[in-house]
Amino acid sequence: MKPHLLQNEELKELIAKIPGWEIISNHLEREFNFGDFIEAFSFMTKIALICEKYNHHPNWENVYSKVIIKLSTHDLGGITNLDQKIASEINEIFEK
Amino acid sequence: MKPHLLQNEELKELIAKIPGWEIISNHLEREFNFGDFIEAFSFMTKIALICEKYNHHPNWENVYSKVIIKLSTHDLGGITNLDQKIASEINEIFEK
Repeated sequence: MKPHLLQNEELKELIAKIPGWEIISNHLEREFNFGDFIEAFSFMTKIALICEKYNHHPNWENVYSKVIIKLSTHDLGGITNLDQKIASEINEIFEK
Repeated sequence: MKPHLLQNEELKELIAKIPGWEIISNHLEREFNFGDFIEAFSFMTKIALICEKYNHHPNWENVYSKVIIKLSTHDLGGITNLDQKIASEINEIFEK
């Protein structure tokens, strides 16, 4: 997938497509909460595999049962369709 | 291991025992850099197992090949011997 920056209209429509994510200063961000560290880190492991597959990696942090994920495409300076795709796949994993 | 807060003298000696770590506003912190995301996340996976074993979890973040780890003992409001032990084990993993 060749990433392209999402433009105004696309950004407006974006949030409806990836519930839970917010646009915060040029990146997508969502906080996920789990029952404990094992659940949180298992979630991170699944995401790591997806991100490696797309060769597109998040800025993310974890404290115990909380995971905060930030997605953007540095090379293009903003949010792209690739960020959207990965955010969508992360939501699918979370909902399972 | 029952954690206890490290006192002034112990804190002074601490840094010599865990090379690379800094004391930053009531927590221990170290940045680790790797060749790529796979190496960085493999490192995180090993640390996750250790932290779960001690039931003591870091505040940590990752961006591609960089991992920043912050250790403190919230219940006691500072840096304890348990943080020191985990920092030391993290160093051992990193050096392998």
